[in-house]
Amino acid sequence: MLQLLRRMNNFYLQGSCRANCYRFEIDGTQVGWISPHVASLLTRYPDVFSPPHGGAVSLCHGLDSYRKRSEAVDAVLQTLRQESSLFCLKGWRDEKYSVMPKFSDPPLMWMERAATSLFGVKRYGVHVNGYTVSDTGEVSMWLARRSPTKQTYPGLLDNVAAGGLSAGVGIKHTLVKECQEEACIPAATAEKACPVTTVSYTYEDEEGVFPESQFIFDLELPPKFKPRVGDGEVQHFYLLPIDKVKELLATDDFKPNSAMVVLDFLIRHSYIEPDTEPCYQEFVAGLHQTL
Amino acid sequence: MLQLLRRMNNFYLQGSCRANCYRFEIDGTQVGWISPHVASLLTRYPDVFSPPHGGAVSLCHGLDSYRKRSEAVDAVLQTLRQESSLFCLKGWRDEKYSVMPKFSDPPLMWMERAATSLFGVKRYGVHVNGYTVSDTGEVSMWLARRSPTKQTYPGLLDNVAAGGLSAGVGIKHTLVKECQEEACIPAATAEKACPVTTVSYTYEDEEGVFPESQFIFDLELPPKFKPRVGDGEVQHFYLLPIDKVKELLATDDFKPNSAMVVLDFLIRHSYIEPDTEPCYQEFVAGLHQTL
Repeated sequence: MLQLLRRMNNFYLQGSCRANCYRFEIDGTQVGWISPHVASLLTRYPDVFSPPHGGAVSLCHGLDSYRKRSEAVDAVLQTLRQESSLFCLKGWRDEKYSVMPKFSDPPLMWMERAATSLFGVKRYGVHVNGYTVSDTGEVSMWLARRSPTKQTYPGLLDNVAAGGLSAGVGIKHTLVKECQEEACIPAATAEKACPVTTVSYTYEDEEGVFPESQFIFDLELPPKFKPRVGDGEVQHFYLLPIDKVKELLATDDFKPNSAMVVLDFLIRHSYIEPDTEPCYQEFVAGLHQTL
Repeated sequence: MLQLLRRMNNFYLQGSCRANCYRFEIDGTQVGWISPHVASLLTRYPDVFSPPHGGAVSLCHGLDSYRKRSEAVDAVLQTLRQESSLFCLKGWRDEKYSVMPKFSDPPLMWMERAATSLFGVKRYGVHVNGYTVSDTGEVSMWLARRSPTKQTYPGLLDNVAAGGLSAGVGIKHTLVKECQEEACIPAATAEKACPVTTVSYTYEDEEGVFPESQFIFDLELPPKFKPRVGDGEVQHFYLLPIDKVKELLATDDFKPNSAMVVLDFLIRHSYIEPDTEPCYQEFVAGLHQTL
């Protein structure tokens, strides 16, 4: 697990691109990280992006409203997408994500989801731990196997439901929608999900920088209830005893951030104990890394 | 709460002493932070501490064992204590804390608890959330009012039991001992406490640098059970409904790190929700800051 946590937080490690990245700023406030490669592409659009200065790439001052910023950046991204010079833009989703310094701040613009990693803009989502408690108190966890045709992490194990937070959409609302669409969990059941924490991390890969925070919910499902494949994002659901879940967590069969969510569940529900797991504190730290 | 979390993590803020601190190293591995003032005092003991070099103060190479390091440093500290030039050493407790780079590493030496802040050595402890659930499912929390004669934070509100982790003593063992000593909770009851997470932070004040991680346990107590004042560290115990606990959390009547532990409890038990608390993610981040 430590290895996974390190990989999911590799942006914080020495030798990451962080030292070479520019801050992405709007009105003097940082909202992301831009690699030198992306920064040099953006110099072609001087009406939208000021050239790198003092370690930062900024939106031009004239772009002084949510709409102006969003539309100007979107036009640049549409051009870059056509040129197909950036691989991640092939995954264009027509999903608008909010861009803001902190979650509690008002959004300064929206940005296409597929482009957020180019700007190292923080993404938020929800993940749901679906579980059952038997008459004898034994806990089992529902896990999903992602569809083999999913754009990202095809065929890997995942939480029972999860999804990204689009601009202007509530957290619980997103959870209920994803539960219905992905796992056919009725809204009345999904509404009972309990918010319990966040899981945060920042990784970099060839597609950019990914600072992410997931809002985590625990959802106890009735023992007789079975999630069903909904919108085709999942190929199968499994109900597994905790020992089996622990075993799987040690393999690389999990979508990485979903493995982190399961690890957090195991810690919060006392299936991992600090006297017997020497890395307990490092586990918790790795689940909550923020810039 | 954000203000409290910032204060308890002020070592990470710009303008903290961090930029001027030396790393405290043993055999090339960092185990703490030393302020310039303390570093200059230590130059008087060249047989124990190598002079500052490359941003670090190190133990001399000849001190090549747990015992040699511990005894040599202790001798220096005893001298400094006699000179009474360092205020924090007036709080000498004859309590040995382990010094190690990470909790999962073998300890490299022990150090008197009262001196750890001079060396910015990480301290570990346990905190217990004692609570009851009524027949109708209502949760109330037991809080302690610290004795007015306590050396630290006299008269403030605290968790039902808490204590530092001494060298070589187990985590659950410490919890059971503190529950018995401070709150007269029988061992058989305290044993049922569930480990749920850690709470980590680093603050600086005039006595030094305090990187700390607390192992957190939830302990559901029978509705009829009442904690009683034990060793005199507490003057009174209160059983309070969650709404009242929330109210108190907004005052400065709490020992700061205990307030963080209560905030974590409220988040994990869904008494704070991300759709209605804009700072939810910042709260969670502030409860888990690590270097």
